Amino acid sequence: MNTPASPLLSPDRIASEHATLPQWALSSDEKSISRSFSFKNYYHTMAFANAVAWIAHQQDHHPDMTVSYNKCTVTYSTHSAGGITAKDFTAIKAVENLITG
Amino acid sequence: MNTPASPLLSPDRIASEHATLPQWALSSDEKSISRSFSFKNYYHTMAFANAVAWIAHQQDHHPDMTVSYNKCTVTYSTHSAGGITAKDFTAIKAVENLITG
Amino acid sequence: MNTPASPLLSPDRIASEHATLPQWALSSDEKSISRSFSFKNYYHTMAFANAVAWIAHQQDHHPDMTVSYNKCTVTYSTHSAGGITAKDFTAIKAVENLITG
Amino acid sequence: MNTPASPLLSPDRIASEHATLPQWALSSDEKSISRSFSFKNYYHTMAFANAVAWIAHQQDHHPDMTVSYNKCTVTYSTHSAGGITAKDFTAIKAVENLITG
Repeated sequence: MNTPASPLLSPDRIASEHATLPQWALSSDEKSISRSFSFKNYYHTMAFANAVAWIAHQQDHHPDMTVSYNKCTVTYSTHSAGGITAKDFTAIKAVENLITG
Repeated sequence: MNTPASPLLSPDRIASEHATLPQWALSSDEKSISRSFSFKNYYHTMAFANAVAWIAHQQDHHPDMTVSYNKCTVTYSTHSAGGITAKDFTAIKAVENLITG
Repeated sequence: MNTPASPLLSPDRIASEHATLPQWALSSDEKSISRSFSFKNYYHTMAFANAVAWIAHQQDHHPDMTVSYNKCTVTYSTHSAGGITAKDFTAIKAVENLITG
Repeated sequence: MNTPASPLLSPDRIASEHATLPQWALSSDEKSISRSFSFKNYYHTMAFANAVAWIAHQQDHHPDMTVSYNKCTVTYSTHSAGGITAKDFTAIKAVENLITG
């Protein structure tokens, strides 16, 4: 699911990347990073989930998502590496562009 | 989000409904019921999530979903009632029909 | 895309099936059958298109769809047979159930 | 559906914008512009249609789309203006970014 191999980022690198994306939350073990997005209703929430899925298809890097009535939480981790890699931050920036872009 | 009001089901009623849908798991507090569905890839998983969303739109009863690469977990609860109601079983049966046709 | 092979229906059979589904329109050459569905907005229209797509995935029988702001037109034909087969009517009934079911 | 009002572009402006997006085809009356995108299967085609829909939701500018098994044709026109406006080219560039971005 995650090709090509991407090395784990150092804690320092994660911190500096994360500093530019403060809306995203690192898990306590720093192995994943997530953000919740709020929407008006289930139609809008699913539309966003589909947009995130398109990014995932294009990048061949697939987040976990939770969908509820008016919220979608997107969580990235590079499972093949066992933690956060550059691919996760690339993906996060693309997801941010969905909202602001 | 859940209209009209639907009363909580008794433990006995939940048990008898659940007996006909053993693939679904009751939460330990019996306030929600869920099932995980496995798929070939993220495209298929999202296609299913969209199909479940259509049922939710039609029934005005919206499950929580978690989506990962090849799995979608669907969880129903009637939040306005604080637990499981007849609406949840109606929804579950519609979701089952997505797979069995 | 259309497996297994399904034979073309006779004009009489098409007429009798069609009589039960008068909301659907036969093309003038009777090689395809279509219906337009109206919705509130683009979110709703796309939600429906995704629901029809799920049926298509499940049945391995794929309609053409046109999507505009508040309308989705679904057109079935069995391309491998060069016209309308029983598979088209099976699909149409499943699509009708999305709305009424 | 198209807010705020966007004025029709002159034929010269359409020509110069179009020159940078030669994959898109102007209709013979120059009132709309479209492109067909090819995909592997219906899953991929629908994933793209959903991604285009997200752009449409965000921009409040909604293309017509036709979806077939392995092809999605996207057509933009600013209906409120009766032809092509700057909004159409903005939208087209966002759709291009879905593939190349």
